[in-house]
Amino acid sequence: ILYSFTESQDKEILEPCKATLFTGVGQPAVYENLTRPKLKHEEDVIIKVIKTTICGTDLHILGGNVFTCKPGTRIGHEGIGVILEKGSKVTKHQVGERVICQCITTCGNCKNCDKEFYGHCDNGGWIIGNEIDGMQGEYVRIPFANNSCYTVPKHLYNTDVEDALVMCSDILPTGLEVGLLDGNIKKGMTIAIVGLGPVGMATMICAEIYEPKEIYFVDLNPYRLDVAESLGKMPGFANTKITKIVNTNDDAAEQILKHTDGNGVDLAVECIGIPKGWEICQEVAMVGGHIAMLGVHGKPGVINLERIWYKNFMITAGLVHGYTTQMLIDRIVEGTLPAHKLLSHSMKLSKVEEAYKLFKSGVNCLKILLVNDDEWDNNPHLKEG
Amino acid sequence: ILYSFTESQDKEILEPCKATLFTGVGQPAVYENLTRPKLKHEEDVIIKVIKTTICGTDLHILGGNVFTCKPGTRIGHEGIGVILEKGSKVTKHQVGERVICQCITTCGNCKNCDKEFYGHCDNGGWIIGNEIDGMQGEYVRIPFANNSCYTVPKHLYNTDVEDALVMCSDILPTGLEVGLLDGNIKKGMTIAIVGLGPVGMATMICAEIYEPKEIYFVDLNPYRLDVAESLGKMPGFANTKITKIVNTNDDAAEQILKHTDGNGVDLAVECIGIPKGWEICQEVAMVGGHIAMLGVHGKPGVINLERIWYKNFMITAGLVHGYTTQMLIDRIVEGTLPAHKLLSHSMKLSKVEEAYKLFKSGVNCLKILLVNDDEWDNNPHLKEG
Repeated sequence: ILYSFTESQDKEILEPCKATLFTGVGQPAVYENLTRPKLKHEEDVIIKVIKTTICGTDLHILGGNVFTCKPGTRIGHEGIGVILEKGSKVTKHQVGERVICQCITTCGNCKNCDKEFYGHCDNGGWIIGNEIDGMQGEYVRIPFANNSCYTVPKHLYNTDVEDALVMCSDILPTGLEVGLLDGNIKKGMTIAIVGLGPVGMATMICAEIYEPKEIYFVDLNPYRLDVAESLGKMPGFANTKITKIVNTNDDAAEQILKHTDGNGVDLAVECIGIPKGWEICQEVAMVGGHIAMLGVHGKPGVINLERIWYKNFMITAGLVHGYTTQMLIDRIVEGTLPAHKLLSHSMKLSKVEEAYKLFKSGVNCLKILLVNDDEWDNNPHLKEG
Repeated sequence: ILYSFTESQDKEILEPCKATLFTGVGQPAVYENLTRPKLKHEEDVIIKVIKTTICGTDLHILGGNVFTCKPGTRIGHEGIGVILEKGSKVTKHQVGERVICQCITTCGNCKNCDKEFYGHCDNGGWIIGNEIDGMQGEYVRIPFANNSCYTVPKHLYNTDVEDALVMCSDILPTGLEVGLLDGNIKKGMTIAIVGLGPVGMATMICAEIYEPKEIYFVDLNPYRLDVAESLGKMPGFANTKITKIVNTNDDAAEQILKHTDGNGVDLAVECIGIPKGWEICQEVAMVGGHIAMLGVHGKPGVINLERIWYKNFMITAGLVHGYTTQMLIDRIVEGTLPAHKLLSHSMKLSKVEEAYKLFKSGVNCLKILLVNDDEWDNNPHLKEG
């Protein structure tokens, strides 16, 4: 048995666990000495985190834009770990097995789960690293493990494919489900990806499945624009016209409209989470087009009601559900989805505070893989930085 | 031949035609002595208007909210008339036949028409009473008559069913297509109809087809609230819980949320065309719900990006296409759609200026049927006022 704890009749001795805390709006994330979580329900597992990462949403938590996350919460909602302990009703996974933990907790048994609307599961939804303690620590409790965890194939333990699978916890299904499928993606469409952070990049590599006619990708950051350009070489983009829109002069919408003879695009995906991103999308969605918003927003925007009724367009926004997660895992395992390209850095988990600074800067940076210090040496393919 | 004009080699003598002019933003509509329109294209018809009406959109034109409509345009985009003359390529209709003119002009032959996206027909769309002269006059030219006009069954000429068919030019298909079908209406849904002007009321009677579980209708106007309540007796509402929301205290959203245990509604239909209507809809659309906007808006609103990404909801806005128009005509003819209840007044066309004042006031008023003065006596069922 890998994990045990000692109890006395009067006082329970909790084992230590370092984890990343949200301490208050505007404060940096802090890696603190805390205590190890314990099973609470029959469908819980306790996991030793092997690999985790930071999400743009974590920055939104620190910035005070996620009202449901209270100071004192351990944050992080993506990662892979090994099951140390499981509740009596966890039947799909075994102790010792490595699993990908999805950001959405799914009871599988409520009215929203019945309609595959897992993001709004009555007993879960996005709670990990938000309403309950999250993944950027040495150990974590994952509720409803039968539906919220996915098996990592054993032959991939400690490989770079395993690293890539961390992208299945959130950003890949978010890009595919919220950015593309909610946006009524069809083969041969013209798409604008507004913002090339990790989730914008995830949207880009998922868009390849739909062989778009044209893709416009918008950012200011030369590194990210270059990565997106290199992703443009994926086979599904063989017949796609790919156009880089450098938004240095705040004229992204004008540039896209110029390239499309004033028509705009079928689908504009908002991947930044600021009113500016929404505004660009609103300008470039064509008559009959679609705006899909997957950015986490902290501020309201202006909706140009006086113009959109002319355009017959559709706007969707929301949380991921995870109904594509297994398919995405399969594509990474079979080698058709180059999710490892979303990872720019690897660091030990104990360097998480530094990782937050780097991630926030966005300088030559996409996703940062954070590896439990204990596990670093077991992953010889990893290099610091 | 009912119509002829005289030409000399030097000067063409145009016959007179009274019609309702948009003279400038903020100015009232003016009924003026103008000239009779003539055929311009092979698919045109010239129509003597029998019955027309005023739309909320006409008020938006007068208020300067419809940027495409220039002063000097004859307004009005709804009505029934008799064909006086037709171009050589009009094959579906005959001179002497009465037709319902739809507000959307449809060439039937462009890329948007190919996808039933007639509202954005490359050669038409909503142009009548907007970009070209409209229906609130004695005569009008209707382009692409093969696709833009629908036959009135002969046995219904000069009856109250014919009056009701005027509602098929715009408000009924708008309510059904933009308010309900674009809003992904399904049987048994919970719906909020925000604003009980004619188009809100049209949405209400079309909603009956879908046997909703609950309907909340919102307005300030006691007359309109009473009419909506009486429409609640339609057979398809037999099992519908119908709740009147009187918005005197600007608390419509709170009231609806209270009635729905805080959940909100599946579909909120914005039928006013002001930011307030949009705001109510934004508050009451449930997680996974839909906002359908059919109001013509003149001002931008606030979109609460910081909250909607939690809610996985969908927003649609747009113009009507008219793909349900024939079905709606059939339902009125067979007696299953009580569209005559949307008509509160009948007046002679020559009283159009007075009709505008009454319509704008909304006092005990829904749609006002305006009948060509020549035709008034042929319609013995009509009563002034």
